[in-house]
Amino acid sequence: MTDARPGLHRPFARRETEFRPSPVRAVFELAMDPAYVSLAGGNPDTGLLPTAEVADLSAQLLRERGAEILQYGSGAGADALREAVVHLMAQTGSAVSGADVLATTGSQMGLDLVTKLFCDPGDVVIAEGPTYVGAMGVFGSYEVDLRQVPVDDAGMDPDQLAGVLDAERAAGRTVRFVYVIPHHQNPSGVTLTAERRRRVVEVCAARDVLVLEDDPYAFVGFPGNDPLPSLHSLHPEGVVHLGSMSKLFAPGLRVGWIVAPPELRARLQLAGEAVDIHPSALSQEVAAAWVTGPRWRPVLDAQRAVYAERCRVLLDALGREMPPGVHWTEPSGGFFTWLTLPGVPPGTDLLGAAIEQRLVLVPGDACFVDPPPTRHVRLAFSSGSDADLIEGARRLGAMVRAVQA
Amino acid sequence: MTDARPGLHRPFARRETEFRPSPVRAVFELAMDPAYVSLAGGNPDTGLLPTAEVADLSAQLLRERGAEILQYGSGAGADALREAVVHLMAQTGSAVSGADVLATTGSQMGLDLVTKLFCDPGDVVIAEGPTYVGAMGVFGSYEVDLRQVPVDDAGMDPDQLAGVLDAERAAGRTVRFVYVIPHHQNPSGVTLTAERRRRVVEVCAARDVLVLEDDPYAFVGFPGNDPLPSLHSLHPEGVVHLGSMSKLFAPGLRVGWIVAPPELRARLQLAGEAVDIHPSALSQEVAAAWVTGPRWRPVLDAQRAVYAERCRVLLDALGREMPPGVHWTEPSGGFFTWLTLPGVPPGTDLLGAAIEQRLVLVPGDACFVDPPPTRHVRLAFSSGSDADLIEGARRLGAMVRAVQA
Repeated sequence: MTDARPGLHRPFARRETEFRPSPVRAVFELAMDPAYVSLAGGNPDTGLLPTAEVADLSAQLLRERGAEILQYGSGAGADALREAVVHLMAQTGSAVSGADVLATTGSQMGLDLVTKLFCDPGDVVIAEGPTYVGAMGVFGSYEVDLRQVPVDDAGMDPDQLAGVLDAERAAGRTVRFVYVIPHHQNPSGVTLTAERRRRVVEVCAARDVLVLEDDPYAFVGFPGNDPLPSLHSLHPEGVVHLGSMSKLFAPGLRVGWIVAPPELRARLQLAGEAVDIHPSALSQEVAAAWVTGPRWRPVLDAQRAVYAERCRVLLDALGREMPPGVHWTEPSGGFFTWLTLPGVPPGTDLLGAAIEQRLVLVPGDACFVDPPPTRHVRLAFSSGSDADLIEGARRLGAMVRAVQA
Repeated sequence: MTDARPGLHRPFARRETEFRPSPVRAVFELAMDPAYVSLAGGNPDTGLLPTAEVADLSAQLLRERGAEILQYGSGAGADALREAVVHLMAQTGSAVSGADVLATTGSQMGLDLVTKLFCDPGDVVIAEGPTYVGAMGVFGSYEVDLRQVPVDDAGMDPDQLAGVLDAERAAGRTVRFVYVIPHHQNPSGVTLTAERRRRVVEVCAARDVLVLEDDPYAFVGFPGNDPLPSLHSLHPEGVVHLGSMSKLFAPGLRVGWIVAPPELRARLQLAGEAVDIHPSALSQEVAAAWVTGPRWRPVLDAQRAVYAERCRVLLDALGREMPPGVHWTEPSGGFFTWLTLPGVPPGTDLLGAAIEQRLVLVPGDACFVDPPPTRHVRLAFSSGSDADLIEGARRLGAMVRAVQA
C-alpha cells in the first residue's frame, strides 16, 4: 500500500477557494472562552426558553407518532411544518398555501438552494451593503459576482438599486436576483421602511428581476414593533421568501422554509432532495407544534422585551464609552447594532485589535465585497448579560482609541 | 405592478436541467396509496422501534441540556455525535478520532459536500453499475461525468475498475474519486467481498485516486452477517467514508457523517457551514444517545432478524411467481434484491407496467447512466408486510409476463 495521500494534495474543484471561514464561525471557539466577552454571535437567548415544556412536547410527538417522525418524510416538508409556515406568513401579510412552502435545513439552506438553482458562475447578485456574511459565503461557493447597494437608516436605497441594476444590464451582465434582509437587518440592525419596500419591489418588477427576501428577524422586533408587510406580500409572483425558526424559536433545530410559487417550489424541492432529502422530521414537528401552540407568543414576547432591554443597556454603554464621532444604528428589534468608526485607517485588523482587548465581534469589512474606506463593526446584544454588554462596550472603547490614527 | 413573473420564466442556472425527480421520491405519494403495493422505498421499519423509549430519551436530553441543544452548535457536529461515530467506526475496523468526523444532514449531504469540494463540471467519477440513484442526482447537479463498472455477485470488479481508470487517464480526463457502496449495495443487494475490498483500494491507491465509501448498510446485515472491515480501515488516508443513522436507527432524524483526515474534514466543514450551518442538534443528540445506549443493539438485532425473514418471504415468492430465466440476487443483509429480466425489449416502460399492476418499484435503468440492454428492477423487502411481499411478487410476475417479448 502506498503512503501517498490521494485526494488531499490534488487540486480541489475551482469553487474550493471560495470556502472561507465565516468570521462568526471562525471565532465560535474563542467566544466560548470565559476570559473573552463575545458580542459576535447572532444568537437568540435559548436560556429564556422553557426547555421542560419543549421536552414534553417532543416526547408527546414521538410517543404519538414516533414511527412516522423517525421515518423518511416528504421532500417538501412535514405537513404540520408547512401549515405552521402558512400561519406565520399570514402575520406579515402573505396569503400562501402549503403548496407554496418548502421546508429547509435552516434558511441558510434556502439561500443555498435558490443560488444553486439560479446562478451560473459569473452571474450577478445584488445585496445590501453591508450584508449577511453567511450569504456571501453561499454566493462565493457558486462563484457569483456580488454587487452591493448602500444601506442608510431606512434600509437599502431604491434609487441606487435601480442605478446598479441598469448599469449591470447595460454592461451585458445577468442579474439573477436582489437579496434583501428587510427586518432588523444583519448586520446593520436597520429595517427597510414600508415606503422603501414598495419601491424596491417596483424597481425589481419593472426590470423583471427576482427579489430574494431573507426575513429571519420579522418576529423579533422590540415590544411595539410588530412586523411590516413582507416584500413577498407586495408581489408574491416576483419575490421568493426565506423564513427561519432560528430567531423566533430555536436555531439548534435547523428548520427554515422557502415560500415560492408552486412550480418554482417544485424545482427547489428537487434540488433540495439531492442535497439532504429533507430536513430533520423531528425538528420540523417540534418547531411546528411549538409555534402553533399557546406558549410560543408569550415566551417570544418575553424574549423580545429582554432583547430590547439589552439593546438599551448596550447603546447606553456605547454612549459612555465611545470616543467622539463614533456612530451606531438604533435598532427597533433584532440582535445587532452597527458601528461606524471614523479615523481608523483602512487595513487595520479590527478583529485582531478586539481580541487584544479580549473582545470578540464581527469586523464590518467581512460584510462587504469591496469594503468602504470608513471602518465598521457589528455588535450583537441578544445573548449577552448586562455585565457583558457593559464590559464589552468598555473594551471596545479601549480598542477604538488604540486603533484610531 | 407588472404581472410578469420574474425568475420563473427566465433561464435557470445551467445545472438546473440536472435536477430530476429520483424514481424513488417521484413515486413517494403513489407508494402511500393503499391500492398499491410498494416495493420501492429503501426504508427501515421504524414501526419496530420502541418509540416511547426514544420519546423519553429526547425529553431527558432537552430537560437536562435544552438551552444548549436548542442553540447554534459546532459546525463539525455535536461532541456526543462525533464520539458515537468513533465507536461505530471501530466496529468496522476504523480507528478514528472525533477530529476526523464531520456531522452531516444525512449521508446524502456528505455525498453532496464531497462532490462539491472535488468536482468541477466535466470531471469524472466512477461508480458501481448499477449505483444509488440519489448519488447520480448529486453527481448530475455538479455536472460530473459518471462512469460505471459492472457489479457481479462479489461486488464491483477491480480489474474492470483498473481498466476504466486507465482509459480515462489515457484520454486526459480527471477522475476525482471512485464511489463504492460496499455492504448490501443499493440497488443490487450485493456485498463487496473482503478480497475485492483490498483489490479496489489497491487499484485506486496505485493510481492516486480517492475512494468515496458510502456505507449506510454496514450494520443491517442479516443475523450472522456482521460488517466486513471498511475500505476506510484498509487505507484511511485514501478513503473518505460516509456513514448514516438512517438504516441503523432512524432516517427521519437526517443525521449522517463524513470521516476524513482532519485537513480535509476542515475543508468539508467550511463547505457544509455554507449549506446548512450544521445538522439538527436535537437529531444529533438523540441519535448519539440512542446508538451508545443499551437498547440500540438488541432493537437493531431484532430488526435484522425481521429483514432476513422478509427477504426470505420475498425470494420464496419470486421463486413461485417469476417466469423461467428471471434472476435475482441473494442478499446477506440490507433492504434490496435486484432482478434481471430476460426478454424485455429496451425502451419498455417498466415503472408504467408495474403501476398498471398497482405495484411500485424502482426500474433498473434509473441506476445507470447508459442502461444495459438487459432490463432490471430493484425490489425492497425491508418495510413490507409478508402479505405485501407475496402480493407484490404476484403482481410483478404478471407484469413481467406482460412485458416480455
